[in-house]
Amino acid sequence: MGTRENGCAGSTQPSAAAPQVDKGVDFANYFCTYGYLYHQKEMLSDRVRMDAYFHAVSRNKHHFRDKAVLDVGTGSGILAIWCAQAGARKVYAVEATKMADHARELVKGNGVDDIVEVIEGSMEDVVLPEKVDVIISEWMGYFLLRESMFDSVICARDRWLKPDGVMYPSHARMWLAPIRSGLTDQKMDEVNCSMNDWRSFIEETESYYGVNMSVLTKAYREENEKYFLKTSLWCNLDPHQIIGTPAVIKEMDCLQATVDEICTVTSQLVHPINIDRSRISAYAGWFDVQFKGSEQNPAKDEVELNTAPDKDGGTHWGQQVFLVNPPIRVNEGDKVNVSFKMSRAKQYHRLMDIEIISELELSSGKRFPPVTTKVAIE
Amino acid sequence: MGTRENGCAGSTQPSAAAPQVDKGVDFANYFCTYGYLYHQKEMLSDRVRMDAYFHAVSRNKHHFRDKAVLDVGTGSGILAIWCAQAGARKVYAVEATKMADHARELVKGNGVDDIVEVIEGSMEDVVLPEKVDVIISEWMGYFLLRESMFDSVICARDRWLKPDGVMYPSHARMWLAPIRSGLTDQKMDEVNCSMNDWRSFIEETESYYGVNMSVLTKAYREENEKYFLKTSLWCNLDPHQIIGTPAVIKEMDCLQATVDEICTVTSQLVHPINIDRSRISAYAGWFDVQFKGSEQNPAKDEVELNTAPDKDGGTHWGQQVFLVNPPIRVNEGDKVNVSFKMSRAKQYHRLMDIEIISELELSSGKRFPPVTTKVAIE
Repeated sequence: MGTRENGCAGSTQPSAAAPQVDKGVDFANYFCTYGYLYHQKEMLSDRVRMDAYFHAVSRNKHHFRDKAVLDVGTGSGILAIWCAQAGARKVYAVEATKMADHARELVKGNGVDDIVEVIEGSMEDVVLPEKVDVIISEWMGYFLLRESMFDSVICARDRWLKPDGVMYPSHARMWLAPIRSGLTDQKMDEVNCSMNDWRSFIEETESYYGVNMSVLTKAYREENEKYFLKTSLWCNLDPHQIIGTPAVIKEMDCLQATVDEICTVTSQLVHPINIDRSRISAYAGWFDVQFKGSEQNPAKDEVELNTAPDKDGGTHWGQQVFLVNPPIRVNEGDKVNVSFKMSRAKQYHRLMDIEIISELELSSGKRFPPVTTKVAIE
Repeated sequence: MGTRENGCAGSTQPSAAAPQVDKGVDFANYFCTYGYLYHQKEMLSDRVRMDAYFHAVSRNKHHFRDKAVLDVGTGSGILAIWCAQAGARKVYAVEATKMADHARELVKGNGVDDIVEVIEGSMEDVVLPEKVDVIISEWMGYFLLRESMFDSVICARDRWLKPDGVMYPSHARMWLAPIRSGLTDQKMDEVNCSMNDWRSFIEETESYYGVNMSVLTKAYREENEKYFLKTSLWCNLDPHQIIGTPAVIKEMDCLQATVDEICTVTSQLVHPINIDRSRISAYAGWFDVQFKGSEQNPAKDEVELNTAPDKDGGTHWGQQVFLVNPPIRVNEGDKVNVSFKMSRAKQYHRLMDIEIISELELSSGKRFPPVTTKVAIE
C-alpha cells in the first residue's frame, strides 16, 4: 500500500481510498501535461468552461470582496486573477507544476500581484498563513472524477476553509444515458482487422523464422479488445444520439463530500427508452457543476457548467463513451435498469474501472437476463 | 542525484553517468510500452530487423551449439528461441516487464522450454547460476542510443559474460548526413500557425474575460519552437534526400564499450556536398550494427543490420531528423565541417540532447561563421 500524502492523514478516512502513487510516477503519468502552455491554452479556449467560471465569480462579487481565497491547481492563474479583479483581499494560488512560474508572470502582467500569491507545490504539502473564505478550483476531469483531483480539493477544504466558507463550484453531478453510436461497429471492425493482420503475421513468422506465435493469439485478442472495446472513448456527442432518459448517477455537495464516497461510486438507474427500433450501442457519461454558494451564504446569481451533449459543440471534456458489445435492441416504451459501479483502478488512483449491468425490461414487463459491460477510463 | 541500480556499482565508472531515475518513474516513462503485444508485434514485423538477427544466429551456429546464452530484454522471447533452435544448451531470457509471461508461453509453445529459462526482472538485479558464452540483445533505440538500454547490456556483460565470450551484435556505428527535406518549412509553418492562433486567443481572452495573456507570448513561442523545431523527428527517408557524404560519428566495440563513452558522444565530421544549388534543411542520424563475433571467436558468416535511408522502405527505427533552421545554402564542391555532441538529458537518462555546430566551407576555401543547432531526442 502506498503512503497517503502529508497534511491529510487526519482529515480523510483512509480505509477505502486507493493507495497513492509515488510522486515521481504521479508526475510522469499525470502532472507533467499541465506544465505545458499548449495544454493550458486548450482549457483557456473552452468558452463554456471559461464563461461558467467567469460569470460565477463576476456575478457573485459578494463572495469575494475583501475576502481570502484559495485557488487549488491554479494552472495559468486565470481563476485567481478573476477573484482578485472581483475584489478579493488575498488569493493563494497553488500549482504543483512549473506552470506556477507562468502564473506568476500572468498575475504580475495583469497588475494583481499585490493580491495574488502564487505558490508552487502540492496542495497536500503547502502551508498557508491563514484560513480562507472561498476555495475555487477547476478540478473536474472527464466524467467528473477522472484524475481524482477532487481529493486535493477535499484536503484543501478540510485544512484551509473557514467553517462558514464557500466552495466554487458548490455542487456536482454525474450523469449516464444510453446512446446510439457508430463507434461500436467501428471498433469491432478495428479488432477484426487487427486479428486478420495477426493471422498473416503468424503465418509469416512461422514460414520465415520457424517460430509459431499462435500461443499468443488469445492474449493478443484480449489486448486488442481491451484497447478498442473496453476502454472509454472521448466524444462530443450529438444530443440526437441519446435514446433513453439520462439519469443522475451521483450528486455531490462539495462542502461535505469525502474521499471515500468518490472512491467507489455505485448507483441503480432507470432509463426509459425514447426512440423506436433502435440499439443501445453505448452509454455516455458526463457531468455538470453548479456555483450556488452555501446555504448560509448563497450565490446571488447561480451559474451552472454543463457538459451534456450539446448541438453547439460542447466542451473540451466531451463525454465519455462506454461501448456495449453486442448492442441491445430497444423500442420506445422499453426501459433499461442499470446497475452502475465506478471504482479507482488498482494500479493508479487517477484512472477508473467501470461496470455497467444492463437489464432490458420491455413495456410488457418481460425482463431479459442482465448484460455486463466492463470498461476502463484510461 | 539518483542511485545507481544494484549489481553494477563496481563494474562501471559512475563519474560521468547521468543519474538513474526511480524505478517506478522509469516504468511509467519507458518500460511500460514493452509490456504490450502490439508493440512487440511491431518490432517482430520489421523484416530487416528480424532477418538480421535470424541470419546472424542461424548462420553462426558454432557460437551457440552446446553453449550458455543470455538474452538481455527478451521481450516476446524470439531471440532466445532462435538461440535454442541453433543448438544452445541453455538460454537465460531476461525481461523487465510482464511480457515475460508471454515469452514463457511462446517458449513452451515452440518446444524449447527445456532450454530457455525466462526470468522476469531487471538485468541489473537478476542473478544467474552461471556465466554465459554469448550475450544476445536487441537493445538499439532510435539513432542507436535513445533509451540507453545498452547500459543494461554493459552491466550484463561485465557480470555474466565469460572472458572469451561473444556479443550479438558485436559492433555498432552511428552515422550523420546533411539532407534536404520539406519538414523544416512545414514545421516553421506549424509554429507560425500556432502563433497566429495564439494572437487571436489573446485578443479574445482580453475582450471576453478581461485578462491580458500577452506576457506569456514569449514562453508560448519558445514552447512551440521547442516542440516543432527543436525536437527530433522520426522519418523513413528517401536516399535521394541525402545531399552530402554521410560520416561515422562513433564506432563501438560491444565487448569493450563503457557507459562513460556513450553518455556523451562527441565527434568532428566533414560532409562533402554532393548536389548543386541545394539547402541543408536538416541532418539525419541513423545506425548500423554488425554481428562479427570476437577476434578469438569470429563469425563464420558476418551479418549487418543497417538502418540507413533505403529505397525499399526502411525499418521501424527510421532515421532521426534534426531540423536546421534556417537552412544552409550549399553547392556541389562545398563541404560542411560539423562538430557533433550528444549527451543524456538532465531530467531523464533515456532521452538525449544534441548539439550540431555546422561550418560551411566553400570550394574556394571561404568559411562561414558556424551555425548551432540544438535538438532534443524525446
